[in-house]
Amino acid sequence: MKILTFLTDFGEKSGYVAQMKAVALSLAQPLQCIDISHQVPPQNIQVGAFILKNTVPHFPKGSVHVAVVDPGVGTERNGIVVITKSHILVGPDNGLLIPVAQELGDFKVYKIENASLFHHPVSNTFHGRDIFTPVAAHILNGVRFEQIGPQINHFMDAVSQKPRLMADVIQGSVVFIDDFGNIITNIASSDIDKMMQKPYDIIIKIKEKSFTLPFKKSYSLVSKGSCLALIGSNGYLEISMNQGNAAKHLNVAIGDEVFISSMEKKDK
Amino acid sequence: MKILTFLTDFGEKSGYVAQMKAVALSLAQPLQCIDISHQVPPQNIQVGAFILKNTVPHFPKGSVHVAVVDPGVGTERNGIVVITKSHILVGPDNGLLIPVAQELGDFKVYKIENASLFHHPVSNTFHGRDIFTPVAAHILNGVRFEQIGPQINHFMDAVSQKPRLMADVIQGSVVFIDDFGNIITNIASSDIDKMMQKPYDIIIKIKEKSFTLPFKKSYSLVSKGSCLALIGSNGYLEISMNQGNAAKHLNVAIGDEVFISSMEKKDK
Amino acid sequence: MKILTFLTDFGEKSGYVAQMKAVALSLAQPLQCIDISHQVPPQNIQVGAFILKNTVPHFPKGSVHVAVVDPGVGTERNGIVVITKSHILVGPDNGLLIPVAQELGDFKVYKIENASLFHHPVSNTFHGRDIFTPVAAHILNGVRFEQIGPQINHFMDAVSQKPRLMADVIQGSVVFIDDFGNIITNIASSDIDKMMQKPYDIIIKIKEKSFTLPFKKSYSLVSKGSCLALIGSNGYLEISMNQGNAAKHLNVAIGDEVFISSMEKKDK
Repeated sequence: MKILTFLTDFGEKSGYVAQMKAVALSLAQPLQCIDISHQVPPQNIQVGAFILKNTVPHFPKGSVHVAVVDPGVGTERNGIVVITKSHILVGPDNGLLIPVAQELGDFKVYKIENASLFHHPVSNTFHGRDIFTPVAAHILNGVRFEQIGPQINHFMDAVSQKPRLMADVIQGSVVFIDDFGNIITNIASSDIDKMMQKPYDIIIKIKEKSFTLPFKKSYSLVSKGSCLALIGSNGYLEISMNQGNAAKHLNVAIGDEVFISSMEKKDK
Repeated sequence: MKILTFLTDFGEKSGYVAQMKAVALSLAQPLQCIDISHQVPPQNIQVGAFILKNTVPHFPKGSVHVAVVDPGVGTERNGIVVITKSHILVGPDNGLLIPVAQELGDFKVYKIENASLFHHPVSNTFHGRDIFTPVAAHILNGVRFEQIGPQINHFMDAVSQKPRLMADVIQGSVVFIDDFGNIITNIASSDIDKMMQKPYDIIIKIKEKSFTLPFKKSYSLVSKGSCLALIGSNGYLEISMNQGNAAKHLNVAIGDEVFISSMEKKDK
Repeated sequence: MKILTFLTDFGEKSGYVAQMKAVALSLAQPLQCIDISHQVPPQNIQVGAFILKNTVPHFPKGSVHVAVVDPGVGTERNGIVVITKSHILVGPDNGLLIPVAQELGDFKVYKIENASLFHHPVSNTFHGRDIFTPVAAHILNGVRFEQIGPQINHFMDAVSQKPRLMADVIQGSVVFIDDFGNIITNIASSDIDKMMQKPYDIIIKIKEKSFTLPFKKSYSLVSKGSCLALIGSNGYLEISMNQGNAAKHLNVAIGDEVFISSMEKKDK
């Protein structure tokens, strides 16, 4: 069965997501609608891009993904379709779709122009329902990409979320905080491997405070209520608290800078 | 594939919605279950009715919709099935289902009486699971409406949400606030067209304060953090803030009165 | 169509639930994914077990259920598959799956060992995605239980949530508070039947305060804003407020002790 996923910053109160699914189901059947997240912080393109990058690659090949974090809706910004070898993404041309496309390898970008594919009347404020979702449904129905609009080579790139690797220090940032309060950085497992030698603790500076955390494989390898560093399930350095909320405890927010350095583990 | 939607004030923590879907899937297969919203403010029939009215018409013809905002559960209030030309709604007889039915045109109302269609034992507090959902599933399976109960002509109408149109002023009210903090009124685009001449700013009085807002087509046509008025994607006047939360900023709640009047736009 | 349900303490912001569904859909199609709840309080196994117990039995026979409230992820705790006559559950061996299995009658437990069924690379912190969901998908595809791992007789039992029945008093506890603020206890309808004679009011002592509540069949049989006791839709004693939030009003939390005794109803 065809799979269509949705990621937005709409929240789940308003029925807006259901309106998108309703439009999709009116055009393409049978269809499986799957929610990725609707709790992207409002207008936060980088968080939306981060969640997409971690989630889309797990879906079956051929899935189509509508993503709408769209502060520029109703202005001149384009809508785009991004075609990778395994997945297709539809959304605004504001960088949201690019990190996952880069993660998936080669990709092409088409500008959405063909208004005969839209849901009419097209509103000025809800292109997720009126443009992106119907275009996605037509793609699931087999429309040729050329019918959507011209291929383009210039599109908004994502703001770089790469950390800076220095001699003894990695400078990164907090890119996400999940519902457990896990603080997820943009520092990849491979970045740490370059710098450190195991076994080690890790020195973290965040919000002008420095502290040393044990670097462990999972949460409950430290005592309840203790903080630790680990590589999370998407491959990035996380700062967590066993059975507690690290982000609240450390008063950390998305966007905060993080500096890490390593320390040889002392014998106990 | 058959489509069954759900709108409730249950929240998403408790498993109550899953219990309804489980009952539906036990009776009617294959079936696609779609959530409209489960975050209707508790017992707020008007907000539930507003979301239904905006969302249900987008679904494919023949969809069935269970809606449960039901402060009178376990009392003498009836359960009803509302049949329109394109959609079927099932829920309590308290006005929740009527605005969308009126929106969709002619409709008939049947009183739910046939207990052989229910999920037994029928609880006193959860007719969404034990009465409305199984009746909806039987409808999807083709039960004739006459088998559900008698057609009735008297049912609870919705509280009127129509604004008052006066010579120079429209008096409306706040009917919904979405997760962005957009303040959505009951003043339709067509109401404004009757009063105003474009281009114009709009004078809004809410909570005893008056202010003048630019009337624009979309959010980002004012600077970040500025408020504006616009016609939202469901056709109603919204008061919004570009990349901010207008409802928090203006301290506005559902039910607040709104007075609007127009002002010729000055040349800049 | 095959049904796979999900219960977690992940919240809905992060995309983690979508990653599990993506893995499932990559392995087993066609498949219907249904959410039970993702708002189990973090690491609260008892609340997760309570919601599972109330919800799973309503699903069609043959449904498979992945449940992940897993503070011990990445330690030596086992993963298990629990086979009942009607449903199959997959999750950590920490008591989460046992109350619903006991509710459903005889059951067998298999230890998950066969890594060829996993999603690789297996992370240390997200066995929901990398072990439990793919094992559930393989079960839906017909894998024999013996291929998953050995049947075991020793597994973590659930912490008893049974109330104490004394001569005139039942001592129970608050096991759940739903989004309405209904305070749900572990005191079953049948426990109360043993002690009391109808009609009666009910004396409740909670947080060192005693008060007498009318025992009614549904919420709106007391006036708006009044508290009452009733048997909720899952068969347990609830303390509620008509159109209000009893838990906030009484400042009650999950885990609080509740003592109840009965009182003959006075003639009005």
